[in-house]
Amino acid sequence: MSELQNDRLLRALLREPVDVTPVWMMRQAGRYLPEYRATREKAGDFMTLCKTPELACEVTLQPLDRFPLDAAILFSDILTVPDAMGLGLYFEEGEGPRFRHPVRDRAAVDALPVPDPEGELRYVMDAVRTIRRELAGRVPLIGFSGSPWTLATYMVEGGGTKNFALSKGMMFDRPELMHALLEKLAQAVTLYLNAQIAAGAQAVMIFDTWGGTLTPDDYREFSLAYMQRIVEGLTREAEGRRVPVILFTKGGGQWLEAMAETGCDALGLDWTTDIGEARQRVGDRVALQGNLDPCVLYASPESIRRSVAKILERYGEGSGHVFNLGHGIHPTIDPEHAAAMIEAVHELSQPYHP
Amino acid sequence: MSELQNDRLLRALLREPVDVTPVWMMRQAGRYLPEYRATREKAGDFMTLCKTPELACEVTLQPLDRFPLDAAILFSDILTVPDAMGLGLYFEEGEGPRFRHPVRDRAAVDALPVPDPEGELRYVMDAVRTIRRELAGRVPLIGFSGSPWTLATYMVEGGGTKNFALSKGMMFDRPELMHALLEKLAQAVTLYLNAQIAAGAQAVMIFDTWGGTLTPDDYREFSLAYMQRIVEGLTREAEGRRVPVILFTKGGGQWLEAMAETGCDALGLDWTTDIGEARQRVGDRVALQGNLDPCVLYASPESIRRSVAKILERYGEGSGHVFNLGHGIHPTIDPEHAAAMIEAVHELSQPYHP
Repeated sequence: MSELQNDRLLRALLREPVDVTPVWMMRQAGRYLPEYRATREKAGDFMTLCKTPELACEVTLQPLDRFPLDAAILFSDILTVPDAMGLGLYFEEGEGPRFRHPVRDRAAVDALPVPDPEGELRYVMDAVRTIRRELAGRVPLIGFSGSPWTLATYMVEGGGTKNFALSKGMMFDRPELMHALLEKLAQAVTLYLNAQIAAGAQAVMIFDTWGGTLTPDDYREFSLAYMQRIVEGLTREAEGRRVPVILFTKGGGQWLEAMAETGCDALGLDWTTDIGEARQRVGDRVALQGNLDPCVLYASPESIRRSVAKILERYGEGSGHVFNLGHGIHPTIDPEHAAAMIEAVHELSQPYHP
Repeated sequence: MSELQNDRLLRALLREPVDVTPVWMMRQAGRYLPEYRATREKAGDFMTLCKTPELACEVTLQPLDRFPLDAAILFSDILTVPDAMGLGLYFEEGEGPRFRHPVRDRAAVDALPVPDPEGELRYVMDAVRTIRRELAGRVPLIGFSGSPWTLATYMVEGGGTKNFALSKGMMFDRPELMHALLEKLAQAVTLYLNAQIAAGAQAVMIFDTWGGTLTPDDYREFSLAYMQRIVEGLTREAEGRRVPVILFTKGGGQWLEAMAETGCDALGLDWTTDIGEARQRVGDRVALQGNLDPCVLYASPESIRRSVAKILERYGEGSGHVFNLGHGIHPTIDPEHAAAMIEAVHELSQPYHP
């Protein structure tokens, strides 16, 4: 493997000194980039893009060729694991992801296999290996997975949902069945992330997109407990370095203390929590990643710069902060506005790393 | 006016002793009720239902005829005020509310009138008067309005939005223009709620549906400050009793202390905050309304009863709690499940009011 030329991300995630605050963006390889839309067009459909390692590598690297980002993140879908479990993932135009075989009863849960990451999911590992080779040490590569709870909602509903009628219905009425499903998902995700690490991922992130729709008790029992199990099962060292783990629950600002206790290295923050207050609450235990409102990128470069400055000031001096949006970049953002954000982070963060 | 036979709601909102915990449901007059769907059919379209006081009264009373609820809430739309400002509200099937004339520049903001509540909005006041007469003192009537920030998002976007591109764009790039719009809305909402109180509303609630999409700083500056101005301008006594004011910011669980400082009487809580912890934080200053996850009503009556018991236990002994869902009841809920919740609240709360 090539030597890492820019390790700011890894250092900041471990709260080690850095020269400037590192920055990347959730969904940085995405529809706001014309070059992404061109590759997507070439691929035909979205899953072909995910399942063709060369194309996944191509879109992963696109934002790095355009912006001085401090990390690459594997381009993939969060639903690859349920798809490999045999649920039959497909995308309906304008409808989002759907599953042909939702999981709604004991027989369906029991029948779910735990996929072999180098079997049905080999295309993901091949993408990781290809990206690492092509990155040639420019920046670290982040691997990722959806959280068990987040995956379970899609698997039970048969796709995206606004109301969580079936998934929460199962959680309330048949908690033991939901736990069986989550247990299987925690096993599968642990294997999946460890395989990504073995293939070359230098940090990993667990996206808990829907944990924030739960009550505090239900969050701890049905989402956090399974993320903790994953954290405990992960390989934490590779290529002679620690592999940091980032947990991100959207809407989880009230539960940072509990999240920090899982043993992860960093927490993702959406924009509804002040990062300075978050640092006071958990900054002695974990690094923080975030937390610009993605809507700021709709505004002018001057407004963007002002908002970046405020977050850097709130976090304050020292390492332990990875700048990011509080959620994925919106598809209609002007790439020049993303450039303004990234430039502002590097420039304005220097005084905080004396 | 008839004497009030059941004043549990008003007493609980003022933290005065009650025999059992009062309960009502956001959107209790709504699509989950077959009798509502019949009236809606009869009315033809949604705005005719809102604008015909007899029909608005009919649907307001329907849930009270079915369940032993402790409050009625005016049936209306949150966008009546912008409609009366001349924006041209209409509903597209399956698309939600839209405005013919969005507000996007200084000229449009300056041109907005502050509507006379007994003029363009007289149909709302007539509905309040009709409902009070027909209620004949069974339970108190709650009036309501959307918060200035929430109304502004619809007015700038021209309808509902997922990304808040235009409204947050204006907030970041032209804060002075957004403030001018919010200032006008705060004036209009104050007049609107005071007119509802004069017409017979015995408590009022401000729905801040979209305040929770803001950063803590932006929430204080662009949403909470204007709700505070409204609270300060409201008539707080009518018919010889205090008129309690409830503030509800969906997703505002991190900001309860600041909300309690506005001078309101009660805070609405969604289900992502533990009501026992919320009581510790602000229960010496305000009552709390909430906070059952509305998805619990998808589950069995046994599960519903268990979840009700947990919230009552977490709140603990004494007054100051109005039981409610943490958000509006979903349209596909079985009315029998709502009945199970209401029954459980009255029955299981007795030991907490010795």
